[in-house]
Amino acid sequence: MCGSSSVYQNKSLPSLMHSPLLSPQLLNSLTPEENTQCQHGLYFQDGERRVDYILTYHIKKPSSSRSNRQSSRFTDNAFTRSLRRGTARLGRPPPPQPRGDPEVASQDHSMDYHEDDKRYRREEFEGNLRDMGLELEKDEDTKTPGVGFVKIHAPWHVLCREAEFMKLKMPTKKVYEVKQCSGVGAKINTLVNKATEPLHPNVEENRGQHVKHLSYAFSREKQHLFDLSDRDSFFDSKTRASIVFEVLKRTKCTKAKYSMGNNPLRCSLFQLLYEEWASYSVFYKYQPIGLVRKYFGEKIGLYFAWLGLYTQMLIPASLVGVIVFLYGCATVDNNIPSMEICHPRNNITMCPLCDRACNYWKLKEACGTARASHLFDNPATVFFSIFMALWAAMFMEHWKRRQMRLNYEWDLTGFEEEEVSALRSVSCISLLFVSEEPTNKWKQTVQSAMAGLKLVLLVSSPPPPGLIPVTSFQIGVTFAIVFGVILYRISITAALHMSNNPTTRSNVRLMVKTTAAIINLVVILILDEVYGAVARWLTVLEVPKTDRSFEERLIFKTFVLKFVNAFTPIIYIAFFRGRLVGRPGSYLYVFESYRMEECAHGGCLMELCIQLSITMLGKQLIQNNLFEIGIPKLKKLIRYIKSKRRSFQEEEREKKLQRYETDHFLEPFAGLTPEYMEMIIQFGFVTLFVASFPLAPLFALLNNIIEIRLDAKKFVAELRRPVAARAKDIGIWYNLLRGVAKVAVIINAFVISFTSDFIPRLVYQYMYSPDGSMHGFVNHTMSYFNVSDFQDGKEPMDPHHLGYQVEMCRYKDYREPPWSNTPYVVSKEFWAVLAARLAFVIVFQNVVMLMSDIVDWLIPDIPKDISLQIHKEKILMVELFMKEEQGKMQFIDSMTPCDGKGRNNHAPIARSRSIPHTHSHTHANNF
Amino acid sequence: MCGSSSVYQNKSLPSLMHSPLLSPQLLNSLTPEENTQCQHGLYFQDGERRVDYILTYHIKKPSSSRSNRQSSRFTDNAFTRSLRRGTARLGRPPPPQPRGDPEVASQDHSMDYHEDDKRYRREEFEGNLRDMGLELEKDEDTKTPGVGFVKIHAPWHVLCREAEFMKLKMPTKKVYEVKQCSGVGAKINTLVNKATEPLHPNVEENRGQHVKHLSYAFSREKQHLFDLSDRDSFFDSKTRASIVFEVLKRTKCTKAKYSMGNNPLRCSLFQLLYEEWASYSVFYKYQPIGLVRKYFGEKIGLYFAWLGLYTQMLIPASLVGVIVFLYGCATVDNNIPSMEICHPRNNITMCPLCDRACNYWKLKEACGTARASHLFDNPATVFFSIFMALWAAMFMEHWKRRQMRLNYEWDLTGFEEEEVSALRSVSCISLLFVSEEPTNKWKQTVQSAMAGLKLVLLVSSPPPPGLIPVTSFQIGVTFAIVFGVILYRISITAALHMSNNPTTRSNVRLMVKTTAAIINLVVILILDEVYGAVARWLTVLEVPKTDRSFEERLIFKTFVLKFVNAFTPIIYIAFFRGRLVGRPGSYLYVFESYRMEECAHGGCLMELCIQLSITMLGKQLIQNNLFEIGIPKLKKLIRYIKSKRRSFQEEEREKKLQRYETDHFLEPFAGLTPEYMEMIIQFGFVTLFVASFPLAPLFALLNNIIEIRLDAKKFVAELRRPVAARAKDIGIWYNLLRGVAKVAVIINAFVISFTSDFIPRLVYQYMYSPDGSMHGFVNHTMSYFNVSDFQDGKEPMDPHHLGYQVEMCRYKDYREPPWSNTPYVVSKEFWAVLAARLAFVIVFQNVVMLMSDIVDWLIPDIPKDISLQIHKEKILMVELFMKEEQGKMQFIDSMTPCDGKGRNNHAPIARSRSIPHTHSHTHANNF
Repeated sequence: MCGSSSVYQNKSLPSLMHSPLLSPQLLNSLTPEENTQCQHGLYFQDGERRVDYILTYHIKKPSSSRSNRQSSRFTDNAFTRSLRRGTARLGRPPPPQPRGDPEVASQDHSMDYHEDDKRYRREEFEGNLRDMGLELEKDEDTKTPGVGFVKIHAPWHVLCREAEFMKLKMPTKKVYEVKQCSGVGAKINTLVNKATEPLHPNVEENRGQHVKHLSYAFSREKQHLFDLSDRDSFFDSKTRASIVFEVLKRTKCTKAKYSMGNNPLRCSLFQLLYEEWASYSVFYKYQPIGLVRKYFGEKIGLYFAWLGLYTQMLIPASLVGVIVFLYGCATVDNNIPSMEICHPRNNITMCPLCDRACNYWKLKEACGTARASHLFDNPATVFFSIFMALWAAMFMEHWKRRQMRLNYEWDLTGFEEEEVSALRSVSCISLLFVSEEPTNKWKQTVQSAMAGLKLVLLVSSPPPPGLIPVTSFQIGVTFAIVFGVILYRISITAALHMSNNPTTRSNVRLMVKTTAAIINLVVILILDEVYGAVARWLTVLEVPKTDRSFEERLIFKTFVLKFVNAFTPIIYIAFFRGRLVGRPGSYLYVFESYRMEECAHGGCLMELCIQLSITMLGKQLIQNNLFEIGIPKLKKLIRYIKSKRRSFQEEEREKKLQRYETDHFLEPFAGLTPEYMEMIIQFGFVTLFVASFPLAPLFALLNNIIEIRLDAKKFVAELRRPVAARAKDIGIWYNLLRGVAKVAVIINAFVISFTSDFIPRLVYQYMYSPDGSMHGFVNHTMSYFNVSDFQDGKEPMDPHHLGYQVEMCRYKDYREPPWSNTPYVVSKEFWAVLAARLAFVIVFQNVVMLMSDIVDWLIPDIPKDISLQIHKEKILMVELFMKEEQGKMQFIDSMTPCDGKGRNNHAPIARSRSIPHTHSHTHANNF
Repeated sequence: MCGSSSVYQNKSLPSLMHSPLLSPQLLNSLTPEENTQCQHGLYFQDGERRVDYILTYHIKKPSSSRSNRQSSRFTDNAFTRSLRRGTARLGRPPPPQPRGDPEVASQDHSMDYHEDDKRYRREEFEGNLRDMGLELEKDEDTKTPGVGFVKIHAPWHVLCREAEFMKLKMPTKKVYEVKQCSGVGAKINTLVNKATEPLHPNVEENRGQHVKHLSYAFSREKQHLFDLSDRDSFFDSKTRASIVFEVLKRTKCTKAKYSMGNNPLRCSLFQLLYEEWASYSVFYKYQPIGLVRKYFGEKIGLYFAWLGLYTQMLIPASLVGVIVFLYGCATVDNNIPSMEICHPRNNITMCPLCDRACNYWKLKEACGTARASHLFDNPATVFFSIFMALWAAMFMEHWKRRQMRLNYEWDLTGFEEEEVSALRSVSCISLLFVSEEPTNKWKQTVQSAMAGLKLVLLVSSPPPPGLIPVTSFQIGVTFAIVFGVILYRISITAALHMSNNPTTRSNVRLMVKTTAAIINLVVILILDEVYGAVARWLTVLEVPKTDRSFEERLIFKTFVLKFVNAFTPIIYIAFFRGRLVGRPGSYLYVFESYRMEECAHGGCLMELCIQLSITMLGKQLIQNNLFEIGIPKLKKLIRYIKSKRRSFQEEEREKKLQRYETDHFLEPFAGLTPEYMEMIIQFGFVTLFVASFPLAPLFALLNNIIEIRLDAKKFVAELRRPVAARAKDIGIWYNLLRGVAKVAVIINAFVISFTSDFIPRLVYQYMYSPDGSMHGFVNHTMSYFNVSDFQDGKEPMDPHHLGYQVEMCRYKDYREPPWSNTPYVVSKEFWAVLAARLAFVIVFQNVVMLMSDIVDWLIPDIPKDISLQIHKEKILMVELFMKEEQGKMQFIDSMTPCDGKGRNNHAPIARSRSIPHTHSHTHANNF
């Protein structure tokens, strides 16, 4: 023993390994020159050891405080130490303090304690990392002032050890042929492949592979199974980075501060991704998911695979949607109810829509709305909403299959997500995650609070009370705002009714609807941001036990708040508006002066449609595209300007910057949550109210085609490369999608039966129509009102507005006529129609749910070919091992004396054979 | 090399291993003498090698045909061989033929081909088994004529190899303390433990274990991790048997015939199980699930754990059920509607219930039914059905948690069920499974057909058409039979109405109801058996791809058929009976002479309740207990008598029989499907119509307390010990339970709103009642009928039956009175009540489903302590490995020259260290 501190290799000494950056076949697209340039900064000073991971941290500007720090180190040492001891006694690191950014530079003195303390912690942490076998190289004298880099290299033995711990499945030497199916299926397959040829990205690996490497969990004892001829490419850069990250997560320290490291090695793969994926010019192609996964890891790969499948599935949905819409357009002239309304002879006098200020009007005036309503309210809509419910079920099933296929292709079968049970780690890495962006103060504060709270959770305190009230308050705020917008609309409408010019009136009414929708949209956008923050805060208060559960709770809360926010106004219009309006002569009032809103003749479907399209398009255009493109650009600019202020020889420096230094100016990766959230809200628009807006899938499709490439660009060029995370599935998002799909069935049932006139038409046709046709439907839906029943002050100011004396007017409702025993109470038809509506809801909901379940049950979760291949792999693996076993046996037999009774000696040999094994761990190799 | 055939040890030579039967702590309950007796027959002839598995096969009776066979072997050899070649060319084994049982002894000649062929195949198969390293001992000269036994022993190296392949998790040497929670929780826990002390079975291992062995997937390279000091007890008998079974399944042969082997070693564990589990005297105790699992394997262990949890969960359900029932009893005298009906002053004349034959009657006559109905139709019932829906959700969640806990305790975490992807094996073992019971011809035929069809599936033919028609036909038969019973009831009732004696009439009416229910029950019982067979046949036709999918499809089909069978009559009574009866003067008729059945005044709930209780109790008593106890006893007797006929010195032989010979007379294990099926149908009774029968959980509880011990007795004493199968969950049964729970919500919603009078009462109270009370409800639900509106021939024969001239009579329906403009059409109240009923269904269904989802979401799937322990185990495992790694490193360092720069030499060492590894597989030990 030469002392335990000398066990591990010093960083300054060269290792014996050579590290060509990437496997050669991926370097095709780069010229040799580019290649060298690209590799600049990706190796340690010795040019041999590859940088697998980089940690960055902030240091005080050397000009202003280096001397300060030196002095403070000695003067304040005792204090710092006692502070440290104090916190150690408390068993938690001191809460993170604001770090040295220009704004607080005046508090120089107090800062220095922290600077010093941080340096001490860093050194401790780095020591621990070296103990784990990692090799580090520090690079404090970079051209970027205020930023220090620690480059990390994982030597081969660490990689092997960790790969074994992580049970990484690696390709073995054994290669087998993936059998192509034969017969008709194969021919169809070939044809389809040929047809979709131009849709595939120009990436070699995507094409029909006929051979596949058998994969097996890596273990050093089974090294002979793997092709280790090229050790540097055996673990690819993504895997190396995630191995280092795994070690970082596990490494204990009392206190250490690093900014999250960025992940180097964005080169030829990067180039390929940039050309074949993150470009608008390839929007019509499939995504090179395999490459994405290779570069970003499984978790991000799954997101893009999901997004791709969703977009693909939107194509048939939008096709059918467009057909349904066109069917509406084509049949608008054959629609008997709107024909009757528009017919000049059928000139029914309608009752005033409000007390006093409104006048009698002619049904003919509603002709336009009635015709427009037909576009969204026809039998095809019912079909379409059933179709979309099944579409959603199909989508889920297809995703399960796609996921299974990817799991197989990415060798994740058998990998168990361990995070399920992992406690939220209080190790260094949770502190390392603290973002040091000076532009993002708020986030920092929240995360500091989280870091503190993380310790509380280990003492297992009960979750603080008052979470439900807060959430309820949020939802209350949403409702209040929706109500505010309703009041706005009511009061403007009321004001309008005062005006006498009919043309301005109808124009302005449309304007009011539109402005109200836009106000709603703006409110939604603002609240979305607020709610995201609130959800985060709430989850921190809840102190969940594991990282995964933290993430899931956060997502769930954010989702609920954003969902309520996005859909409350729409739900109001669909189900509550125009329901409780009273009748002419006794309209209902809220707060004594505001009348309940009424829908135009022909149902609220038209307005629902306007609201939906404005909200959806607006959200997509503004939130997704403007925010997603604009804000990162802006942030990058700010960061660039800030760093420019600090240094002077900016221009020359820029050119000589190491890759990891330029990467430092990129936005850090903030997780996939916003991307998924955006998509799931869109999924809500596509499925929830599809009965009233069949074009929603089309809009979603158009948005997503851009979205994929936009996200790709962002991931490739705008963000620091995130650590590759393994994941088998998309986690809670799948459950949320299922939830949305379930709610969609119920909401569509209600939209069809209550918002549209579908059920009243059916009831009329089969119960009341004299000839089984729709003729007379309009008349049937309108009740009579005797003008003499107006109470004082409620009759119209100008009763002769239409030019004649009105004695009886009509209004849309099922009520008894004035001449019945019980005038103006709801009639038998009302109850019959209501019963029919409710029955429809029950039937629709249960039938569609049953059909979804059947779809779920009929489509197997594992594609047939994959299950066959998994089976085949298993057999091959058993064969491989059996052959190996027999090899061993024969070897033993050849060693024993051949006395003719050789078989009898078998048992003692087997025993002696196993003895060296038992101790082999202490001297793994026998030299 | 001494030739490959000499590699494996000859069975006749002693191995070096000693095999005490079981680990000593389990032998406490046996005296040494018993122990020796018990071990008799559990070892090979040498008395050292333990028997791990036994295969049995039928041989011709030596007396009758040994000489025959000898001759035929030579004369027909060419033919036999050509036959063999022919089948080999077809690539499949010849279909199994009927085997040598006494009935076909006359076909001696043709039998001999098969005898001969079978012997040839057996020898081939046995050779293959020896090649796999198993050691066999044949025992043809047993005292049981006609049966041969092959005893199999798996030597240590085979056990190790297979355990490694199967990735069996075994306990390592590393022991850690399971931390008891501290604080209030711990105190409560201790108290609860003390209180439930007498409920625990007297089995040591069940008690609070404070230490647990860390488990790790067994691998020969990591042997040092495991405590191998006692090799014979390292793998317990269950594991050894399942390892041998694994090898058997994998072993290829062209053709071989064995009856399914039985699994020996039923001794002291057996004794303990018999006393502490399979006994009625311990009915109040928890089950020793750990022991059950140890003896029978995880799959059967899970079944009993599930059954235990279900029974436990039934306790609160039946308590609440009884309270609800008692509430009904207590409030029957305060129930205003039944008081009004029974009140002598309130003497309403009712219209005749049928044309011509029936008379006017007094409402008072319905007093008894009305009071009885209240027992099952009161507000508490609504509460109870919501409670039961949530109970079902809770049960599911609890089961998930229990399952997770068992997975953890049984070291199944990380074990992936491989069968998911396994193709249905066409290896020998599927042929071995062919049951040779002469008493079960039909089963044999089906299974032969299956064996043939299994080959077809590999050629991947499309499933044959016509499956849906057959299933539909089955369901059609059920409906037809239900309809037949209805007709029986209608006609008897019609005949009864002819009778004039009112007392016999009411008595006989009850009798009719009861006999009809009994007929239904008998039909259900018979069809149940038929449908089980049909489902099997259908599934064979469908040719599913994997064993698991075969089982799942079979279960699903059987379930659907049995479910429809059990619940069709009940659903008829609940939802269809008395719905479309017409009105006095124009009753509806089917087939022109049979009137639609009507319910008694007060709803059909009473009759539903009678039907439910008879079906449920009858099914449980007859099907479960009589069939389950009686039939196996009978079968055993028959088998015993048959074998007695064959031999003469029965009595002496009996005493000297080896254990495996006595086991041969036990019934083979037929799978858990019937047990689960029985329970899931019972779960249906408990949840589906619970709104109308709150005592169902109580009856189920009583049945299950017996059922657990009954099943236990059966498994321990009546059946051959099945091969231990690993399983992580209860598979498709969980999904079926979920399905039943879902359907239950909908059905209960309909029962409450349509079958009971709950909604009409509510509607009356809030819409029509003058004083908000229930007074006048009875009057409100009855319409008027003017006697003069009777058509000719429909008026009662005896209009003066009541002693006075009736002018106006009443009937229960919402119809317009004779004096309205539209007499006798359904009234506005009808539609209002209908709308209310439908609205209730929607609200109930969605609220309860939402609440179930919330329960599902709130209760975490993994119990907190388990997730903490899993996390802790993971950390310990990493620590263990890291220590090992450091041990290696230090060893290496101590080998290198200590020149002060020791740390620098690290890299080259690491390289050289790994080289021997790479080749170590060819010479695993270096001697």
